[in-house]
Amino acid sequence: MNIVFIGAGNLANHLAKTLYEHSFKILQVYSRTIESAKLLALEVDAEYTNQMENIIHDADIYIFAVKDSILPYLIQNIKSNNGIWVHTAGSMDMNIFHNYSSRFGVLYPFQTFSKTHSLNFKEIPIFLEANNQKTLEILNNISIQISDNVNILSSSKRKYLHLSGIFACNFVNHMYTISDKILKEQDIPFETIIPLIRETASKIKFISPRKAQTGPAIRYDENIINKHLDLIEDTDLKEIYQLLSENIHKENTL
Amino acid sequence: MNIVFIGAGNLANHLAKTLYEHSFKILQVYSRTIESAKLLALEVDAEYTNQMENIIHDADIYIFAVKDSILPYLIQNIKSNNGIWVHTAGSMDMNIFHNYSSRFGVLYPFQTFSKTHSLNFKEIPIFLEANNQKTLEILNNISIQISDNVNILSSSKRKYLHLSGIFACNFVNHMYTISDKILKEQDIPFETIIPLIRETASKIKFISPRKAQTGPAIRYDENIINKHLDLIEDTDLKEIYQLLSENIHKENTL
Repeated sequence: MNIVFIGAGNLANHLAKTLYEHSFKILQVYSRTIESAKLLALEVDAEYTNQMENIIHDADIYIFAVKDSILPYLIQNIKSNNGIWVHTAGSMDMNIFHNYSSRFGVLYPFQTFSKTHSLNFKEIPIFLEANNQKTLEILNNISIQISDNVNILSSSKRKYLHLSGIFACNFVNHMYTISDKILKEQDIPFETIIPLIRETASKIKFISPRKAQTGPAIRYDENIINKHLDLIEDTDLKEIYQLLSENIHKENTL
Repeated sequence: MNIVFIGAGNLANHLAKTLYEHSFKILQVYSRTIESAKLLALEVDAEYTNQMENIIHDADIYIFAVKDSILPYLIQNIKSNNGIWVHTAGSMDMNIFHNYSSRFGVLYPFQTFSKTHSLNFKEIPIFLEANNQKTLEILNNISIQISDNVNILSSSKRKYLHLSGIFACNFVNHMYTISDKILKEQDIPFETIIPLIRETASKIKFISPRKAQTGPAIRYDENIINKHLDLIEDTDLKEIYQLLSENIHKENTL
Protein backbone atom coordinates (compact mmCIF):
# COMPACT_ATOMS: atom_id res chain seq x y z
CA MET A 1 0.00 0.00 0.00
CA ASN A 2 1.86 3.07 -1.31
CA ILE A 3 0.85 6.45 0.01
CA VAL A 4 1.37 10.02 -1.14
CA PHE A 5 0.87 12.80 1.37
CA ILE A 6 -0.52 16.11 0.16
CA GLY A 7 0.35 18.45 3.01
CA ALA A 8 3.07 18.47 5.66
CA GLY A 9 1.41 20.25 8.59
CA ASN A 10 0.75 19.00 12.11
CA LEU A 11 -1.79 16.35 11.17
CA ALA A 12 0.18 15.18 8.11
CA ASN A 13 3.28 14.84 10.28
CA HIS A 14 1.61 12.71 12.94
CA LEU A 15 -0.35 10.56 10.49
CA ALA A 16 2.53 9.99 8.04
CA LYS A 17 4.94 9.04 10.82
CA THR A 18 2.43 6.66 12.37
CA LEU A 19 1.74 4.97 9.03
CA TYR A 20 5.48 4.76 8.36
CA GLU A 21 6.05 3.15 11.78
CA HIS A 22 3.38 0.60 10.87
CA SER A 23 5.29 -0.37 7.71
CA PHE A 24 3.26 1.54 5.18
CA LYS A 25 5.33 2.92 2.33
CA ILE A 26 5.15 6.70 2.06
CA LEU A 27 6.20 7.38 -1.51
CA GLN A 28 6.18 11.15 -1.50
CA VAL A 29 5.28 14.27 0.43
CA TYR A 30 3.93 17.30 -1.38
CA SER A 31 3.79 20.71 0.25
CA ARG A 32 3.73 24.22 -1.18
CA THR A 33 6.57 24.89 1.25
CA ILE A 34 9.52 22.80 0.08
CA GLU A 35 11.16 22.92 3.52
CA SER A 36 8.10 21.38 5.20
CA ALA A 37 7.85 18.70 2.52
CA LYS A 38 11.53 17.90 2.92
CA LEU A 39 11.48 17.74 6.71
CA LEU A 40 8.61 15.28 6.79
CA ALA A 41 9.91 13.28 3.81
CA LEU A 42 13.24 12.72 5.53
CA GLU A 43 11.50 11.30 8.56
CA VAL A 44 9.38 8.84 6.61
CA ASP A 45 11.94 7.90 4.00
CA ALA A 46 9.97 9.45 1.13
CA GLU A 47 10.52 11.71 -1.87
CA TYR A 48 9.27 15.25 -1.71
CA THR A 49 8.12 18.02 -4.00
CA ASN A 50 6.45 21.41 -3.99
CA GLN A 51 5.31 21.09 -7.61
CA MET A 52 1.84 19.70 -8.18
CA GLU A 53 2.77 18.38 -11.62
CA ASN A 54 5.52 16.29 -10.03
CA ILE A 55 3.19 14.39 -7.76
CA ILE A 56 3.60 10.65 -8.36
CA HIS A 57 0.52 9.44 -10.26
CA ASP A 58 0.48 5.69 -9.52
CA ALA A 59 0.27 5.55 -5.72
CA ASP A 60 -2.52 3.57 -4.06
CA ILE A 61 -3.67 6.31 -1.71
CA TYR A 62 -3.43 10.10 -1.71
CA ILE A 63 -3.99 11.61 1.71
CA PHE A 64 -4.91 15.30 1.54
CA ALA A 65 -4.00 16.59 5.01
CA VAL A 66 -4.16 20.34 4.46
CA LYS A 67 -6.08 23.35 5.70
CA ASP A 68 -9.71 23.46 4.56
CA SER A 69 -9.10 26.72 2.74
CA ILE A 70 -6.56 25.17 0.37
CA LEU A 71 -8.19 21.73 -0.02
CA PRO A 72 -10.60 22.53 -2.92
CA TYR A 73 -7.83 24.21 -4.91
CA LEU A 74 -5.54 21.19 -4.56
CA ILE A 75 -8.25 18.71 -5.45
CA GLN A 76 -9.12 20.70 -8.56
CA ASN A 77 -5.53 21.13 -9.69
CA ILE A 78 -3.84 17.84 -9.01
CA LYS A 79 -4.08 15.60 -12.06
CA SER A 80 -6.63 12.78 -11.73
CA ASN A 81 -5.33 9.25 -11.31
CA ASN A 82 -6.52 5.81 -10.21
CA GLY A 83 -5.56 6.09 -6.55
CA ILE A 84 -7.95 6.49 -3.63
CA TRP A 85 -8.21 10.16 -2.66
CA VAL A 86 -8.82 10.82 1.00
CA HIS A 87 -9.02 13.97 3.08
CA THR A 88 -8.68 14.35 6.84
CA ALA A 89 -10.92 17.36 7.49
CA GLY A 90 -13.77 17.52 9.97
CA SER A 91 -16.03 19.94 8.16
CA MET A 92 -15.43 19.09 4.50
CA ASP A 93 -17.99 16.95 2.72
CA MET A 94 -16.63 13.74 1.20
CA ASN A 95 -18.20 14.67 -2.14
CA ILE A 96 -15.71 17.46 -2.64
CA PHE A 97 -13.80 14.72 -4.52
CA HIS A 98 -16.75 13.76 -6.69
CA ASN A 99 -15.68 15.27 -10.02
CA TYR A 100 -11.99 14.53 -9.59
CA SER A 101 -11.68 10.93 -8.47
CA SER A 102 -13.64 7.69 -8.85
CA ARG A 103 -12.60 6.23 -5.49
CA PHE A 104 -12.52 8.57 -2.55
CA GLY A 105 -13.24 8.97 1.12
CA VAL A 106 -12.45 10.59 4.43
CA LEU A 107 -10.09 9.54 7.21
CA TYR A 108 -10.70 11.95 10.08
CA PRO A 109 -8.54 11.50 13.20
CA PHE A 110 -10.43 13.27 15.99
CA GLN A 111 -7.53 14.80 17.87
CA THR A 112 -5.49 18.01 18.27
CA PHE A 113 -1.99 17.84 16.85
CA SER A 114 1.04 19.94 17.73
CA LYS A 115 4.22 19.18 15.82
CA THR A 116 6.40 19.13 18.90
CA HIS A 117 4.16 16.92 21.02
CA SER A 118 4.02 13.21 20.28
CA LEU A 119 0.98 11.13 21.11
CA ASN A 120 -0.26 7.58 21.01
CA PHE A 121 -2.20 7.18 17.78
CA LYS A 122 -3.76 3.90 19.02
CA GLU A 123 -6.07 5.90 21.29
CA ILE A 124 -7.18 8.39 18.64
CA PRO A 125 -10.69 7.81 17.29
CA ILE A 126 -10.67 7.70 13.48
CA PHE A 127 -13.85 8.39 11.52
CA LEU A 128 -14.09 6.91 8.04
CA GLU A 129 -16.31 7.44 5.05
CA ALA A 130 -15.96 6.31 1.44
CA ASN A 131 -17.89 6.46 -1.84
CA ASN A 132 -18.10 2.69 -2.12
CA GLN A 133 -17.85 -0.39 0.07
CA LYS A 134 -14.52 -1.62 -1.35
CA THR A 135 -12.84 1.72 -0.70
CA LEU A 136 -14.28 1.81 2.80
CA GLU A 137 -12.81 -1.64 3.48
CA ILE A 138 -9.38 -0.52 2.29
CA LEU A 139 -9.50 2.57 4.49
CA ASN A 140 -10.70 0.46 7.40
CA ASN A 141 -7.87 -2.05 6.95
CA ILE A 142 -5.34 0.76 7.05
CA SER A 143 -6.93 2.51 10.02
CA ILE A 144 -7.29 -0.49 12.31
CA GLN A 145 -3.53 -0.96 12.11
CA ILE A 146 -2.84 2.47 13.58
CA SER A 147 -5.85 3.00 15.87
CA ASP A 148 -7.93 0.87 18.23
CA ASN A 149 -10.90 3.17 17.74
CA VAL A 150 -12.06 3.15 14.11
CA ASN A 151 -15.61 4.24 13.28
CA ILE A 152 -17.72 4.98 10.24
CA LEU A 153 -19.46 8.35 10.14
CA SER A 154 -21.28 10.31 7.44
CA SER A 155 -20.17 13.78 6.32
CA SER A 156 -23.34 15.29 7.77
CA LYS A 157 -22.59 13.93 11.24
CA ARG A 158 -18.86 14.48 11.01
CA LYS A 159 -19.30 18.25 10.81
CA TYR A 160 -21.13 18.19 14.15
CA LEU A 161 -18.38 16.03 15.62
CA HIS A 162 -15.89 18.65 14.46
CA LEU A 163 -18.03 21.41 15.99
CA SER A 164 -18.09 19.58 19.32
CA GLY A 165 -14.29 19.46 19.16
CA ILE A 166 -14.08 23.22 18.63
CA PHE A 167 -15.73 23.64 22.03
CA ALA A 168 -14.00 20.79 23.89
CA CYS A 169 -10.54 21.47 22.48
CA ASN A 170 -10.02 24.81 20.74
CA PHE A 171 -12.16 26.89 23.07
CA VAL A 172 -10.99 24.95 26.13
CA ASN A 173 -7.39 25.63 25.17
CA HIS A 174 -8.22 29.31 24.81
CA MET A 175 -9.58 29.26 28.36
CA TYR A 176 -6.19 27.86 29.43
CA THR A 177 -4.50 30.74 27.59
CA ILE A 178 -6.65 33.28 29.42
CA SER A 179 -5.85 31.63 32.77
CA ASP A 180 -2.18 31.65 31.93
CA LYS A 181 -2.30 35.40 31.28
CA ILE A 182 -4.16 36.12 34.52
CA LEU A 183 -1.64 34.07 36.52
CA LYS A 184 1.39 35.59 34.77
CA GLU A 185 0.24 39.09 35.72
CA GLN A 186 0.26 37.96 39.37
CA ASP A 187 3.63 36.16 39.08
CA ILE A 188 1.92 32.86 39.85
CA PRO A 189 3.41 29.99 37.81
CA PHE A 190 1.08 28.26 35.34
CA GLU A 191 2.05 24.90 36.94
CA THR A 192 -0.16 25.92 39.86
CA ILE A 193 -3.30 25.37 37.83
CA ILE A 194 -2.31 22.03 36.25
CA PRO A 195 -3.93 19.85 38.98
CA LEU A 196 -7.20 21.78 38.55
CA ILE A 197 -7.07 21.43 34.76
CA ARG A 198 -6.30 17.73 35.04
CA GLU A 199 -9.10 17.04 37.52
CA THR A 200 -11.62 19.05 35.46
CA ALA A 201 -10.73 17.02 32.36
CA SER A 202 -10.64 13.66 34.10
CA LYS A 203 -13.73 13.71 36.27
CA ILE A 204 -16.10 13.93 33.28
CA LYS A 205 -15.19 10.31 32.53
CA PHE A 206 -17.17 9.46 35.67
CA ILE A 207 -19.68 12.30 36.02
CA SER A 208 -21.49 14.02 33.15
CA PRO A 209 -20.09 17.54 32.58
CA ARG A 210 -23.48 19.00 33.40
CA LYS A 211 -23.34 17.39 36.86
CA ALA A 212 -19.65 18.21 37.28
CA GLN A 213 -20.23 21.96 36.92
CA THR A 214 -19.04 23.99 39.91
CA GLY A 215 -18.43 27.68 40.55
CA PRO A 216 -20.33 30.93 41.08
CA ALA A 217 -22.13 30.93 37.73
CA ILE A 218 -24.39 27.96 38.52
CA ARG A 219 -26.58 29.99 40.86
CA TYR A 220 -25.47 33.23 39.20
CA ASP A 221 -23.85 34.49 42.43
CA GLU A 222 -23.74 38.17 41.46
CA ASN A 223 -21.53 39.02 44.41
CA ILE A 224 -18.58 36.97 43.12
CA ILE A 225 -19.41 37.52 39.46
CA ASN A 226 -19.29 41.29 39.91
CA LYS A 227 -16.06 41.04 41.91
CA HIS A 228 -14.53 39.09 39.04
CA LEU A 229 -15.81 41.48 36.39
CA ASP A 230 -14.13 44.26 38.37
CA LEU A 231 -10.83 42.40 38.26
CA ILE A 232 -10.93 41.99 34.46
CA GLU A 233 -9.73 45.02 32.54
CA ASP A 234 -10.02 43.74 28.96
CA THR A 235 -13.54 44.47 27.68
CA ASP A 236 -13.68 41.39 25.41
CA LEU A 237 -12.69 39.22 28.34
CA LYS A 238 -15.37 40.83 30.51
CA GLU A 239 -17.90 39.97 27.81
CA ILE A 240 -16.67 36.37 27.64
CA TYR A 241 -16.89 36.04 31.43
CA GLN A 242 -20.42 37.42 31.50
CA LEU A 243 -21.72 35.47 28.52
CA LEU A 244 -20.34 32.14 29.75
CA SER A 245 -21.60 32.75 33.29
CA GLU A 246 -25.08 33.48 31.98
CA ASN A 247 -24.97 30.39 29.78
CA ILE A 248 -23.89 28.17 32.68
CA HIS A 249 -26.74 29.57 34.75
CA LYS A 250 -29.22 29.04 31.92
CA GLU A 251 -28.03 25.44 31.46
CA ASN A 252 -28.37 24.81 35.18
CA THR A 253 -31.95 26.10 35.34
CA LEU A 254 -33.17 24.07 32.34
CA MET B 1 -5.72 19.69 67.05
CA ASN B 2 -9.53 19.66 67.30
CA ILE B 3 -11.49 20.95 64.34
CA VAL B 4 -15.06 22.15 63.83
CA PHE B 5 -16.41 22.29 60.29
CA ILE B 6 -18.86 25.04 59.40
CA GLY B 7 -20.42 23.72 56.21
CA ALA B 8 -20.95 20.26 54.76
CA GLY B 9 -20.81 20.86 51.00
CA ASN B 10 -18.42 19.42 48.41
CA LEU B 11 -15.29 21.14 49.67
CA ALA B 12 -16.11 20.54 53.35
CA ASN B 13 -16.66 16.85 52.59
CA HIS B 14 -13.34 16.36 50.84
CA LEU B 15 -11.34 18.44 53.31
CA ALA B 16 -12.92 16.99 56.45
CA LYS B 17 -12.45 13.42 55.28
CA THR B 18 -8.85 14.06 54.32
CA LEU B 19 -8.08 15.65 57.68
CA TYR B 20 -9.85 12.76 59.43
CA GLU B 21 -7.79 10.24 57.47
CA HIS B 22 -4.66 12.07 58.63
CA SER B 23 -5.69 11.61 62.27
CA PHE B 24 -7.04 15.06 62.95
CA LYS B 25 -9.99 15.06 65.33
CA ILE B 26 -13.13 16.51 63.75
CA LEU B 27 -15.22 17.48 66.77
CA GLN B 28 -18.34 18.66 65.04
CA VAL B 29 -19.97 19.49 61.71
CA TYR B 30 -22.40 22.40 61.46
CA SER B 31 -24.69 22.84 58.48
CA ARG B 32 -28.00 24.62 58.07
CA THR B 33 -29.21 21.36 56.56
CA ILE B 34 -29.18 18.79 59.35
CA GLU B 35 -29.06 15.87 56.90
CA SER B 36 -25.85 17.17 55.28
CA ALA B 37 -24.28 17.78 58.69
CA LYS B 38 -25.21 14.27 59.81
CA LEU B 39 -23.96 12.54 56.65
CA LEU B 40 -20.55 14.13 56.88
CA ALA B 41 -20.35 13.80 60.68
CA LEU B 42 -20.95 10.05 60.46
CA GLU B 43 -18.06 9.69 58.05
CA VAL B 44 -15.58 11.57 60.18
CA ASP B 45 -16.75 10.33 63.56
CA ALA B 46 -17.97 13.77 64.68
CA GLU B 47 -20.96 15.37 66.35
CA TYR B 48 -23.31 17.44 64.23
CA THR B 49 -25.72 20.32 64.56
CA ASN B 50 -27.76 22.76 62.51
CA GLN B 51 -28.00 25.27 65.38
CA MET B 52 -25.37 27.99 65.48
CA GLU B 53 -25.71 28.36 69.25
CA ASN B 54 -24.80 24.68 69.66
CA ILE B 55 -21.45 25.03 67.94
CA ILE B 56 -18.70 23.79 70.28
CA HIS B 57 -16.80 26.83 71.53
CA ASP B 58 -13.45 25.37 72.61
CA ALA B 59 -12.13 23.78 69.41
CA ASP B 60 -8.68 24.72 68.10
CA ILE B 61 -9.76 25.46 64.54
CA TYR B 62 -13.02 26.45 62.89
CA ILE B 63 -13.05 25.81 59.15
CA PHE B 64 -15.72 27.80 57.35
CA ALA B 65 -16.23 25.87 54.11
CA VAL B 66 -19.45 27.42 52.81
CA LYS B 67 -20.70 29.38 49.83
CA ASP B 68 -19.42 32.95 49.69
CA SER B 69 -22.95 34.30 49.91
CA ILE B 70 -23.52 32.78 53.34
CA LEU B 71 -20.01 33.26 54.78
CA PRO B 72 -20.39 36.84 56.14
CA TYR B 73 -23.67 35.95 57.84
CA LEU B 74 -22.11 32.96 59.58
CA ILE B 75 -19.01 34.85 60.70
CA GLN B 76 -21.16 37.61 62.16
CA ASN B 77 -23.54 35.29 63.94
CA ILE B 78 -21.39 32.53 65.35
CA LYS B 79 -20.29 33.42 68.87
CA SER B 80 -16.65 34.53 69.14
CA ASN B 81 -14.19 32.15 70.78
CA ASN B 82 -10.46 31.56 71.09
CA GLY B 83 -10.07 29.18 68.15
CA ILE B 84 -8.46 29.97 64.82
CA TRP B 85 -11.10 30.89 62.26
CA VAL B 86 -10.33 29.93 58.69
CA HIS B 87 -12.25 30.13 55.46
CA THR B 88 -11.65 28.23 52.22
CA ALA B 89 -12.93 30.74 49.66
CA GLY B 90 -11.00 32.04 46.67
CA SER B 91 -12.47 35.49 46.42
CA MET B 92 -13.11 36.40 50.07
CA ASP B 93 -10.63 38.67 51.80
CA MET B 94 -9.03 37.24 54.92
CA ASN B 95 -10.05 40.35 56.86
CA ILE B 96 -13.68 39.38 56.73
CA PHE B 97 -12.83 37.79 60.13
CA HIS B 98 -11.27 40.95 61.52
CA ASN B 99 -13.98 42.05 63.94
CA TYR B 100 -14.98 38.56 65.00
CA SER B 101 -11.80 36.66 65.79
CA SER B 102 -8.30 37.45 67.00
CA ARG B 103 -6.59 34.59 65.14
CA PHE B 104 -7.73 33.92 61.64
CA GLY B 105 -6.67 32.97 58.17
CA VAL B 106 -7.44 31.31 54.86
CA LEU B 107 -6.86 27.75 53.69
CA TYR B 108 -7.74 27.69 50.01
CA PRO B 109 -7.49 24.33 48.21
CA PHE B 110 -7.29 25.17 44.51
CA GLN B 111 -9.39 22.38 43.08
CA THR B 112 -12.91 21.49 41.88
CA PHE B 113 -14.82 19.16 44.16
CA SER B 114 -17.75 16.90 43.36
CA LYS B 115 -19.15 14.88 46.23
CA THR B 116 -19.25 11.63 44.30
CA HIS B 117 -15.74 11.85 42.85
CA SER B 118 -12.80 11.15 45.13
CA LEU B 119 -9.39 12.67 44.50
CA ASN B 120 -5.88 12.64 45.84
CA PHE B 121 -5.54 15.61 48.19
CA LYS B 122 -1.73 15.33 48.18
CA GLU B 123 -1.66 16.83 44.68
CA ILE B 124 -3.98 19.74 45.43
CA PRO B 125 -2.23 23.09 45.81
CA ILE B 126 -3.25 24.79 49.08
CA PHE B 127 -2.90 28.56 49.49
CA LEU B 128 -2.55 29.88 53.04
CA GLU B 129 -2.81 33.27 54.64
CA ALA B 130 -3.08 34.27 58.31
CA ASN B 131 -3.26 37.42 60.42
CA ASN B 132 -0.08 36.56 62.31
CA GLN B 133 3.00 34.37 61.97
CA LYS B 134 2.05 31.88 64.70
CA THR B 135 -1.33 31.22 63.11
CA LEU B 136 0.29 30.85 59.71
CA GLU B 137 2.66 28.25 61.14
CA ILE B 138 -0.22 26.28 62.62
CA LEU B 139 -2.12 26.33 59.33
CA ASN B 140 1.05 25.35 57.50
CA ASN B 141 1.69 22.42 59.85
CA ILE B 142 -1.81 21.14 59.21
CA SER B 143 -1.67 21.65 55.46
CA ILE B 144 1.66 19.97 54.79
CA GLN B 145 0.24 16.79 56.27
CA ILE B 146 -2.52 16.60 53.68
CA SER B 147 -0.89 18.23 50.62
CA ASP B 148 2.54 18.21 49.00
CA ASN B 149 1.88 21.62 47.49
CA VAL B 150 1.39 24.24 50.22
CA ASN B 151 1.89 27.92 49.38
CA ILE B 152 1.39 31.30 51.00
CA LEU B 153 -0.63 33.83 49.04
CA SER B 154 -2.21 37.20 49.90
CA SER B 155 -5.93 37.86 49.58
CA SER B 156 -5.29 40.30 46.75
CA LYS B 157 -3.48 37.68 44.65
CA ARG B 158 -5.79 34.84 45.70
CA LYS B 159 -8.77 36.48 44.02
CA TYR B 160 -6.89 36.46 40.69
CA LEU B 161 -5.96 32.83 41.26
CA HIS B 162 -9.65 32.10 41.76
CA LEU B 163 -10.50 34.06 38.59
CA SER B 164 -7.98 32.01 36.61
CA GLY B 165 -9.71 28.88 37.91
CA ILE B 166 -13.10 30.12 36.69
CA PHE B 167 -11.70 30.07 33.15
CA ALA B 168 -9.59 26.90 33.39
CA CYS B 169 -12.19 24.87 35.28
CA ASN B 170 -15.73 26.27 35.38
CA PHE B 171 -15.78 27.64 31.83
CA VAL B 172 -13.82 24.67 30.50
CA ASN B 173 -16.36 22.31 32.03
CA HIS B 174 -19.14 24.33 30.42
CA MET B 175 -17.42 23.81 27.04
CA TYR B 176 -17.56 20.07 27.77
CA THR B 177 -21.29 20.40 28.50
CA ILE B 178 -21.87 22.15 25.18
CA SER B 179 -19.88 19.44 23.35
CA ASP B 180 -21.88 16.77 25.11
CA LYS B 181 -25.13 18.33 23.90
CA ILE B 182 -23.92 18.63 20.30
CA LEU B 183 -22.82 14.98 20.29
CA LYS B 184 -26.02 13.72 21.95
CA GLU B 185 -28.11 15.33 19.23
CA GLN B 186 -26.14 13.30 16.66
CA ASP B 187 -26.29 10.08 18.71
CA ILE B 188 -22.51 10.12 19.07
CA PRO B 189 -21.42 8.90 22.52
CA PHE B 190 -19.59 11.43 24.72
CA GLU B 191 -16.79 8.86 25.19
CA THR B 192 -15.74 9.68 21.62
CA ILE B 193 -14.41 13.04 22.69
CA ILE B 194 -12.54 11.90 25.81
CA PRO B 195 -9.18 11.33 24.04
CA LEU B 196 -9.37 14.85 22.58
CA ILE B 197 -10.24 16.35 25.96
CA ARG B 198 -7.44 14.44 27.64
CA GLU B 199 -4.83 15.42 25.07
CA THR B 200 -5.92 19.09 25.16
CA ALA B 201 -5.54 19.12 28.94
CA SER B 202 -2.28 17.21 29.04
CA LYS B 203 -0.25 18.82 26.29
CA ILE B 204 -0.18 22.20 28.02
CA LYS B 205 2.19 20.67 30.55
CA PHE B 206 4.74 20.61 27.74
CA ILE B 207 3.66 23.44 25.42
CA SER B 208 2.25 26.81 26.52
CA PRO B 209 -1.50 26.98 25.80
CA ARG B 210 -0.89 29.89 23.46
CA LYS B 211 1.39 27.70 21.33
CA ALA B 212 -0.91 24.69 21.67
CA GLN B 213 -3.86 26.52 20.11
CA THR B 214 -5.27 24.79 17.02
CA GLY B 215 -8.44 25.13 14.96
CA PRO B 216 -10.08 27.48 12.47
CA ALA B 217 -10.20 30.51 14.77
CA ILE B 218 -6.44 31.11 14.80
CA ARG B 219 -6.43 32.50 11.27
CA TYR B 220 -10.13 33.33 11.51
CA ASP B 221 -11.01 30.92 8.69
CA GLU B 222 -14.41 32.42 7.85
CA ASN B 223 -15.30 29.51 5.62
CA ILE B 224 -15.35 26.98 8.51
CA ILE B 225 -16.47 29.52 11.10
CA ASN B 226 -19.54 30.39 9.03
CA LYS B 227 -20.28 26.72 8.40
CA HIS B 228 -20.20 26.14 12.15
CA LEU B 229 -22.35 29.16 12.90
CA ASP B 230 -24.91 27.74 10.46
CA LEU B 231 -24.94 24.45 12.37
CA ILE B 232 -25.64 26.14 15.71
CA GLU B 233 -29.29 26.96 16.28
CA ASP B 234 -29.13 28.43 19.78
CA THR B 235 -28.45 32.18 19.52
CA ASP B 236 -26.48 32.36 22.79
CA LEU B 237 -24.27 29.52 21.61
CA LYS B 238 -23.74 31.28 18.28
CA GLU B 239 -22.61 34.35 20.21
CA ILE B 240 -20.23 32.27 22.36
CA TYR B 241 -18.77 30.63 19.26
CA GLN B 242 -18.23 33.96 17.54
CA LEU B 243 -16.85 35.80 20.57
CA LEU B 244 -14.37 33.05 21.46
CA SER B 245 -13.26 32.67 17.83
CA GLU B 246 -12.62 36.41 17.59
CA ASN B 247 -10.72 36.35 20.87
CA ILE B 248 -8.54 33.43 19.77
CA HIS B 249 -7.77 35.29 16.56
CA LYS B 250 -6.97 38.47 18.47
CA GLU B 251 -4.66 36.59 20.84
CA ASN B 252 -2.90 34.98 17.90
CA THR B 253 -2.27 38.28 16.13
CA LEU B 254 -0.85 40.01 19.23
